[in-house]
Amino acid sequence: MIPEKNFNIKKYDSQKPQAFYCHPHGELWIGDSIQWLKNLASESVDLVFADPPYNIKKAAWDNFESQAAYVNWSLTWIEEVSRILKSTGSLYICGFSEIIADIKLPALKFFSGCRWLIWHYKNKANLSNDWGRSHESILHFRKTNNFYFNPDNIRIPYGEHTLKYPQHPQAKTSQYGNNGKNDRRIWRPHPQGAKPRDVIEIPTICNGMDEKTKHPTQKPEELVRKFILSSSSRGDIVLDPFFGSGTTLVVAEQLGRRWLGCEIIPEYAVWAVERIKSVKYMSDEEWFWCDRKNEERRKKFR
Amino acid sequence: MIPEKNFNIKKYDSQKPQAFYCHPHGELWIGDSIQWLKNLASESVDLVFADPPYNIKKAAWDNFESQAAYVNWSLTWIEEVSRILKSTGSLYICGFSEIIADIKLPALKFFSGCRWLIWHYKNKANLSNDWGRSHESILHFRKTNNFYFNPDNIRIPYGEHTLKYPQHPQAKTSQYGNNGKNDRRIWRPHPQGAKPRDVIEIPTICNGMDEKTKHPTQKPEELVRKFILSSSSRGDIVLDPFFGSGTTLVVAEQLGRRWLGCEIIPEYAVWAVERIKSVKYMSDEEWFWCDRKNEERRKKFR
Repeated sequence: MIPEKNFNIKKYDSQKPQAFYCHPHGELWIGDSIQWLKNLASESVDLVFADPPYNIKKAAWDNFESQAAYVNWSLTWIEEVSRILKSTGSLYICGFSEIIADIKLPALKFFSGCRWLIWHYKNKANLSNDWGRSHESILHFRKTNNFYFNPDNIRIPYGEHTLKYPQHPQAKTSQYGNNGKNDRRIWRPHPQGAKPRDVIEIPTICNGMDEKTKHPTQKPEELVRKFILSSSSRGDIVLDPFFGSGTTLVVAEQLGRRWLGCEIIPEYAVWAVERIKSVKYMSDEEWFWCDRKNEERRKKFR
Repeated sequence: MIPEKNFNIKKYDSQKPQAFYCHPHGELWIGDSIQWLKNLASESVDLVFADPPYNIKKAAWDNFESQAAYVNWSLTWIEEVSRILKSTGSLYICGFSEIIADIKLPALKFFSGCRWLIWHYKNKANLSNDWGRSHESILHFRKTNNFYFNPDNIRIPYGEHTLKYPQHPQAKTSQYGNNGKNDRRIWRPHPQGAKPRDVIEIPTICNGMDEKTKHPTQKPEELVRKFILSSSSRGDIVLDPFFGSGTTLVVAEQLGRRWLGCEIIPEYAVWAVERIKSVKYMSDEEWFWCDRKNEERRKKFR
């Protein structure tokens, strides 16, 4: 299935995206994302995870003439993503809060709603005489109010306090209810934990991790897994218009989703293909407990 | 100093703000904040902490015709705040991320820069079938690049990993430097801890806390203390244009700052005055260690 000849990284015309790698579950393309998105069918995709340029001059592909030019460019691809999403679909976009804030309001016209999520990490050095950066934002746009979301797949550990006092009387004014017909006074923990929160604590990629590539802004698989587990089902189509080192596609393949991706730098696509070829397969449930154990281990360590 | 006759809460005309409470270190006014700000001298204030209406219909004062009307109203008071701030001054504004994002870009024209901070709390119930809200955003606008900021007053505990491996060789490419003239390979911890980060973990106000009033959106003193400790000095003027239950003014008084506040609901001002009258005084250093101990206790508990 793998047309190795396409690995020649010099012949691509970014304005005419070209297939780079085909696989029984997905395809990788090289070229300009907006041109690529325009060729995709409307309402055909279940989930889009996008880690676009941030306009922070991190690499050559991260330079824009101005913040206004960046916002305009962003709206162009976001409008195409909205078009190709099914009515149950979600779009997640990563960015620095100060920058992505400018995109939220104009992008909202292509969606029914947006929730603002925080990726919180504590393992970055903090040398400046300012607040140390320890978060990025992830906007969760929903195509319609009927968007698919399964929080059970990404439940989080209960706090020790909650587990210590599982049964307690509720105040009369409690939103949990305190009447005969809806008696929730006897609380029982959910076997998979508490509902997920909008602040997600996962460390950034470190040197020495199996998943580490040379990509300058690689996202952790564990982070992307939260969105694929909660916002898609097995067999669904997950798309990443700026796949970089391929994390979204790797995680989609791990979890039995189908996947589509585009990237403008052919060298990154080579790394992505290598990662996809060596994917480890487990059930959604197994991945859930794998990440949960990592999370609990980190909590004890810090 | 306290003109008790002003405690009659019925006679205020919001368009003509009126002094409500005078104190050797500050003043509280009742009325419309924009009208009040217009009467203040330019470049006279060191720090503004603002917890304005969020436009989430939390109370009667939190209703706006539209998000556009909310943004326009916000820009009016923010422009006045920029005018009254000294060149070294900062403005902090609280809000839900999804909403305050719309204010950042247009407000930036009154300032030299903005950093996006997260107030992260874990102690709120999460009943909806969506990401549970566990954060608010706090925008840190700086009047000029010469803004005052003292991170030492709000340093945070080092991670156990950092303390366990204080001395380690740096990679050749490390940003910490690895050459003879700037040898930082031997790392020593700062006595007050690591530099502050842009995600601040403090629980929301709980029933039973000494500082709790009946105000529906009261902020924790510990949270506000971070901003007053880092962005002002003793004797500086701290201003809150929507003081509500008075948290900003209480913390300013605790820390030996002067303070000014305005509030449209006279009943809230009565609560604020009660709190100001019973303020506990400690040095900046003592408050720092008091909050630090609380933070460490919470970490062990959870």
